[in-house]
Amino acid sequence: MRGTVIHEPGDIRVEDRPEPVILEPTDAIIRLSATCICGSDLWDFRGINPVGQPHPMGHEYVGVVEAVGDAVETIEVGQFVVGSFAISDNTCPICRAGYHSHCVHREFVGSAQAELLRVPYADGTLVATPGQPDADLIPSLLAASDVLGTGWFAAVAAETGPGKTVAVVGDGAVGLLGVLAAKQLGAERIIAMSRHETRQKLALEFGATDIVTERGDEGVAKVKALTDGLGAHSVIEAVGTQQSMMQAIRSTRPGGHVGYVGIAHGVELPGMELFFSGVHLHGGPAPVRRFLPELIDLIWRREIDPGKVFDLELPLERVAEGYRAMDERQAVKVLLRP
Amino acid sequence: MRGTVIHEPGDIRVEDRPEPVILEPTDAIIRLSATCICGSDLWDFRGINPVGQPHPMGHEYVGVVEAVGDAVETIEVGQFVVGSFAISDNTCPICRAGYHSHCVHREFVGSAQAELLRVPYADGTLVATPGQPDADLIPSLLAASDVLGTGWFAAVAAETGPGKTVAVVGDGAVGLLGVLAAKQLGAERIIAMSRHETRQKLALEFGATDIVTERGDEGVAKVKALTDGLGAHSVIEAVGTQQSMMQAIRSTRPGGHVGYVGIAHGVELPGMELFFSGVHLHGGPAPVRRFLPELIDLIWRREIDPGKVFDLELPLERVAEGYRAMDERQAVKVLLRP
Repeated sequence: MRGTVIHEPGDIRVEDRPEPVILEPTDAIIRLSATCICGSDLWDFRGINPVGQPHPMGHEYVGVVEAVGDAVETIEVGQFVVGSFAISDNTCPICRAGYHSHCVHREFVGSAQAELLRVPYADGTLVATPGQPDADLIPSLLAASDVLGTGWFAAVAAETGPGKTVAVVGDGAVGLLGVLAAKQLGAERIIAMSRHETRQKLALEFGATDIVTERGDEGVAKVKALTDGLGAHSVIEAVGTQQSMMQAIRSTRPGGHVGYVGIAHGVELPGMELFFSGVHLHGGPAPVRRFLPELIDLIWRREIDPGKVFDLELPLERVAEGYRAMDERQAVKVLLRP
Repeated sequence: MRGTVIHEPGDIRVEDRPEPVILEPTDAIIRLSATCICGSDLWDFRGINPVGQPHPMGHEYVGVVEAVGDAVETIEVGQFVVGSFAISDNTCPICRAGYHSHCVHREFVGSAQAELLRVPYADGTLVATPGQPDADLIPSLLAASDVLGTGWFAAVAAETGPGKTVAVVGDGAVGLLGVLAAKQLGAERIIAMSRHETRQKLALEFGATDIVTERGDEGVAKVKALTDGLGAHSVIEAVGTQQSMMQAIRSTRPGGHVGYVGIAHGVELPGMELFFSGVHLHGGPAPVRRFLPELIDLIWRREIDPGKVFDLELPLERVAEGYRAMDERQAVKVLLRP
């Protein structure tokens, strides 16, 4: 089969790779209908994460079940499924508490930019849609696999809800879908922090009520000016840098909540400032599996259209072009068709 | 009047100081029945916080109202009152959300090791007891002013409750009262981390079910061994060092909660590790005022006896002796009688 391999920073190729097979009785093999490139893939592409040996890429996927192991009970061949980027058994105490992305059997998916994918713990990781989806639903279902689920988790971690003012740091796909999640969860006011016109437009479509173009301390001052000097009740952090984390913490009122989902790179949080901030801090790799049934339902009923974050679609063979477009911020998010 | 003044690290004296007077119509003047020395006072005593100019000390107090300003409405002369170490108006949006220690009018009390104390925003800061307390209740009411309220907040921030396993990092008065709070809040299992026999004994009296004597990574391993390898649901951090914060975070299962109330000194939290820990982090200066009515009620009905943390009582004039005893860990907490 054809699959994406990164050789070194900036060097992404599609190559012939061995077809995955059932290794464990709890596995499933999925033929992918669509996959995509994640903002977090750029950490490798840019060489910020060391690439090391050439390796496959991709962790977002939807598709049709092609085979299942003997122990798979709920997932069936022929079903259309959405899965999380984190493998989970959905039965351990951590999963039962809703933290599937920290399952005792967790593995991170890492070869989904391909034609076929082996998914361990298929019953615990995959959720089938009510039937075969219309073609126009596929981008939204694919978004549920990571960026929507991650933005949703950030909004939940930030305790977004009715009466709340929510600020969103980061205007990538996750930040934009954090806006959508905040809106769905009933936030009263949603401040999107973005300096890019096309992303601002999408944020407004998803439910943002205010746009703040300033960053860092100026951005914080703007959020405070919009909230009687107090800061937002809930802040979503969807970048993962020192600046974005501090911007998020400082934009939050004492007793408020920061939901952070940008993978922290080079971040050191100053303990004394955090202590006196009085904020709640929660985040990490999103337990997407917790939210999948609800998100699939919202998409299936066409109540939300998170697939709008895909502004470039390419055949898998042109994956390198997709990485470059995202790296250069020409595209918010690239959908790939294997 | 007589009051405590720190001149330089290790040099604490009781001196003649001007009597406080009503400055604002919302002030009250309290004649202190008891005050005490806080673990956080040791940061100054040890020179870890710069002392700068000689200044008064103390932020924990109970006593009888001697005078009130014209605008004070609920607090009356002659009442016995307990106050928080943080001044609060109890009416701003931050107070209404329960975060009185971040009130828009917050000041920190800093001269309570004395005969008399001026308390701004008396209506919002002080809570009167149902009547004049029996003498034996005074240590417990004094504890409510900070260490009990702080331990209680840590337990609430750590989402302690029925069915939960709680670990407590720190065996000072706050950690010990965190154990008491966890017990009152219904925790199933309470692991006190302490290597000091007298403190272990008090932890067990307050409700601890397990004692872990190891620290750092060995302590973490011990907590994991007691919790099926997962870590505690709730961890109270009551020290404020890099080691204690990391011990708390690493002792918490993914999705669990760290409530941290040790004033962070030299702490830098590594973003990547925090991200992948999946814990909730919340803490800071405790909004003691939020809990005072409930805590006073529990003490008044003799359901809890937090005053047990005072294991040395001295007249105010011997304050220096008290600081030394706590510095050398000869005493858990020192009560002073002005």
